[in-house]
Amino acid sequence: MLFEVWAPQADRVALQLEGTTHDMEPHPVRTGWWLTEAGAQDGDRYGYVVNGGRPLPDPRSRRQPDGPEGLSAVVVHDDFPWQHPWAGRRLSGAVLYELHIGTCTDEGTFDAAAARLAHLAELGVTHVELMPVCPFPGRHGWGYDGVAPWAVHEPYGGPEGLKRFVDAAHAHGLGVVLDVVHNHLGPSGNQLPAFGPYFTDTHHTPWGAAVNLDAPGSDEVRAYFLESALAWLSDYRLDGLRLDAVHALADTRALPFLEELSTAVDVLSVQLGRPLFLIAESDQCDPRTTAPRASGGLGLHAQWNDDFHHALHTALTGESQGYYADFARAPIAALAKTLTRVFFHDGTYSSFRGRTHGRRVDRSRTPAHRFLGYAQTHDQIGNRALGDRLSATLSPGLLACAAALVLTGPYTPMLFMGEEWGARTPWQYFTDHPDPELAEAVRTGRRREFAAHGWAEEDIPDPQDPATRARSCLDWDEPAKGHHARVLAWHRQLIALRRTRPDLTDPDIAAVKVVHDEEARWLMFRRGDLRTVVNLGKEPAMIPLGRNNCQVLAAWEPVRPPQPDGAFHLPPESCAVLGPTSA
Amino acid sequence: MLFEVWAPQADRVALQLEGTTHDMEPHPVRTGWWLTEAGAQDGDRYGYVVNGGRPLPDPRSRRQPDGPEGLSAVVVHDDFPWQHPWAGRRLSGAVLYELHIGTCTDEGTFDAAAARLAHLAELGVTHVELMPVCPFPGRHGWGYDGVAPWAVHEPYGGPEGLKRFVDAAHAHGLGVVLDVVHNHLGPSGNQLPAFGPYFTDTHHTPWGAAVNLDAPGSDEVRAYFLESALAWLSDYRLDGLRLDAVHALADTRALPFLEELSTAVDVLSVQLGRPLFLIAESDQCDPRTTAPRASGGLGLHAQWNDDFHHALHTALTGESQGYYADFARAPIAALAKTLTRVFFHDGTYSSFRGRTHGRRVDRSRTPAHRFLGYAQTHDQIGNRALGDRLSATLSPGLLACAAALVLTGPYTPMLFMGEEWGARTPWQYFTDHPDPELAEAVRTGRRREFAAHGWAEEDIPDPQDPATRARSCLDWDEPAKGHHARVLAWHRQLIALRRTRPDLTDPDIAAVKVVHDEEARWLMFRRGDLRTVVNLGKEPAMIPLGRNNCQVLAAWEPVRPPQPDGAFHLPPESCAVLGPTSA
Repeated sequence: MLFEVWAPQADRVALQLEGTTHDMEPHPVRTGWWLTEAGAQDGDRYGYVVNGGRPLPDPRSRRQPDGPEGLSAVVVHDDFPWQHPWAGRRLSGAVLYELHIGTCTDEGTFDAAAARLAHLAELGVTHVELMPVCPFPGRHGWGYDGVAPWAVHEPYGGPEGLKRFVDAAHAHGLGVVLDVVHNHLGPSGNQLPAFGPYFTDTHHTPWGAAVNLDAPGSDEVRAYFLESALAWLSDYRLDGLRLDAVHALADTRALPFLEELSTAVDVLSVQLGRPLFLIAESDQCDPRTTAPRASGGLGLHAQWNDDFHHALHTALTGESQGYYADFARAPIAALAKTLTRVFFHDGTYSSFRGRTHGRRVDRSRTPAHRFLGYAQTHDQIGNRALGDRLSATLSPGLLACAAALVLTGPYTPMLFMGEEWGARTPWQYFTDHPDPELAEAVRTGRRREFAAHGWAEEDIPDPQDPATRARSCLDWDEPAKGHHARVLAWHRQLIALRRTRPDLTDPDIAAVKVVHDEEARWLMFRRGDLRTVVNLGKEPAMIPLGRNNCQVLAAWEPVRPPQPDGAFHLPPESCAVLGPTSA
Repeated sequence: MLFEVWAPQADRVALQLEGTTHDMEPHPVRTGWWLTEAGAQDGDRYGYVVNGGRPLPDPRSRRQPDGPEGLSAVVVHDDFPWQHPWAGRRLSGAVLYELHIGTCTDEGTFDAAAARLAHLAELGVTHVELMPVCPFPGRHGWGYDGVAPWAVHEPYGGPEGLKRFVDAAHAHGLGVVLDVVHNHLGPSGNQLPAFGPYFTDTHHTPWGAAVNLDAPGSDEVRAYFLESALAWLSDYRLDGLRLDAVHALADTRALPFLEELSTAVDVLSVQLGRPLFLIAESDQCDPRTTAPRASGGLGLHAQWNDDFHHALHTALTGESQGYYADFARAPIAALAKTLTRVFFHDGTYSSFRGRTHGRRVDRSRTPAHRFLGYAQTHDQIGNRALGDRLSATLSPGLLACAAALVLTGPYTPMLFMGEEWGARTPWQYFTDHPDPELAEAVRTGRRREFAAHGWAEEDIPDPQDPATRARSCLDWDEPAKGHHARVLAWHRQLIALRRTRPDLTDPDIAAVKVVHDEEARWLMFRRGDLRTVVNLGKEPAMIPLGRNNCQVLAAWEPVRPPQPDGAFHLPPESCAVLGPTSA
């Protein structure tokens, strides 16, 4: 087996394999690389010794059985007995389901989560979007502190566990998308600086030195992340990747890293003969993110549309703190704008940023499915002081309205696990840092952050308390109970409608027509022959349909058919989907 | 007269005008602005008092009669008696002449430089590109340390002096381009931070905190620089601006500042009814810089092509230090590449940067005149240890070859003042900082920088020594003397050829055909029916023309016509331009 590692500044590098040391030679062609040949098999422990010292894990380690700071283990990907052939699933027509392995079940493993896949198949979603699964110190965490970007967190089940999960998903006809973090590594356990210039002081990020995408040595750093992306897609048979916070990728080169990445993924898609896609998280409201490379774009296949979320959230809750402020001034109008123009901030002033923000999307060239629409995500729940979901404060009727807006709206819908039954479990910020200093810094940091916004420090859950993670686990007894079952049935009904009615997956954003009444708090949007009507207000609403040949296709609660004059009456906090009468 | 100033964090602002204080009111509409009405006329001294303290110069001051830190003076632009109507001159077909007012003549004024414009008109150039003219502390300097981006350096002649210069240029049929600096302000005398968030710590630049183009308050900072650009073009009747080091404009917004700027300049061009252009200095080798906005570009009209310079410089001198290293490996081939592909680094490895650099230009969509071609600039001369020109080390024959490559090449040619006669005066790094600490820091900083490259510190000219600036002034007795007259005549002949032969201003870069011999050190390029042949070697060269119906249109020294078999013989360090025989 060939062992290779990039360590351009090292004087000498050795492989330590199952206790035996093998000196490595400089690679004859690839500058800065070292290599050696050694007999090894799946599971063998190894590490690299750089200029003496203790053996460090392989930067491209696929498995860290003893945690991110321990030795790596050889993984022979070809050995896995895949059972279910997979042709891939496209993003157009998709419904995504964001899932955190560590809290989807009490066990917090791939296998335990796989046992819930039948529920997802029945719900009707098309893809599971896994939150990050790369190793981080400790057992529990959100996963954005990963430090081994090629490996799989051992407590979740390691590489084999992920493969079993993906294979099980395929058995249910579900695709899998993985959240990957290229913009930083976690604050503890990062061994990369010992190997090479993976980070640069040229740019600063919220997490310290930036990943080196444009300073000396950056060719290999780009290759490191780019090849990891390709490896995830091919070795684990994934359909796509979610790219965390791409706005934090500091990159001044003429060929942006993200454009290189999207090109490589498109090539791989052709090679593998199945669709592959990249979904960016971006706070830039920049159409260039998803614009085709040929027209000067980065060529990413989709991006999260936070503006749609913010408009929806303020319309539902009336909240106006932080970045919600601009949306909260006229939330129904903001929602109408994001339903038809994608971004609320498309060159408008952002009081949160103290400047103009965003840019108008060219709707004639950008299909609707390139944007994800959602009412809740791990961030929008977990970054709240108490990690409370919408279900903690909204009536089931308003949850139903949120579902109608997301699931019949123009954008690729995404649900956060449990949202489909209005789960009452919170999803809080939890960590499990073994380093006591870091643990304390995170604990007090979070309390202080929210104290600054008027919270009592003692009300903020302690991220390091095991109860915080436990509290955040889904309660799988919930969905069968009371209003949860009704909320779940509503989600199933809407997803089924999206699957069977082509109007609902029409890519033409410009064809979406919206009417709304800010004061009465109702909104109606039309997609082809279908109309979605939501009444977010506390009073019954009369919505003028403008035509009298509509029938009710789905309604959260019993409603009368539209009047002959086209007037449609909706109870408070309720919603319906209307279609043409068959006549 | 209305006095307005942006001071968003101020509690109170007052205008001090000719010794009288006028309290200012918050602007009724424009947030953060203050205004007052006061009777004033051209020349009146004024300043703004922010939260008490001494009156500071107006950030948008047009004139600083007592230096950048003194009071501002009212300038009434409409009063200037322009004599020579000006319809503008396009960049296509242009030949630029970079000129530094402070060293063009011993006097160092606009008026003294204007007296030399007849020489430029006779030379045949179309535009003077003035190095920065904004006020900086002290009398002499390169100008990149300016701190009043809307005003004109008083020792040069102030706003009226610049207008007289431009009017005189127009009288000679010459356009004027101005070098403006948006990426930083000088280290001394910068009063802007007292008014508002003009700078941000979010990004770092070689000059400290970055100009704030994307942090809170950046809308007004963008407007400040954007409106200054428009003011230069309209108030002073300029044809274009050269934008200093655009790669140092840290800007993450979806709508880049440079795209806003190019849009505004194109709009102004329509309003004024004359062509206007922006020329970027950029080290990014990024085709997006000059690509049209509609195809995702920044829409700038041109950029300096440093790669062409570096290839030419290494081919002429054999130097290989710093960024010349990659070019020096096969300099004639590098020159051939830049003549046909624009950038040498178009996705190739840059050893100077330790990474891949640049991107291929789409020649089918990018006219040749969007790139400037030059053998010398203020930077490439002045940033050398001794500020020595090519003429200090090269034979007149090699200077003639450089001229042939620049003036018959595909790119918009630019000469640095004096280059046309092979001036022997150096152009050194000189400053005149009144602040003794800064003066000493600059002096020792420069000496140490070059000591690190093997120079003896005492050999490095002292930037603060008045003799350094004096040494850098052109000697206007030179051009009439000896080989200088011959070099000058050669430049005139080539520029005349460029004007009269449409092949030489053909925008199609892909049509340029090059043949070269690395070992023999000759190169020939064809543009339509014309061929430019240069022999940079120390031996006579035989260049196979591949056809036998060529005649010599211009030759640096007497040559025989091409042989019947198409062989053309060139003496060492010599060059010629060939055209078709009339038959």
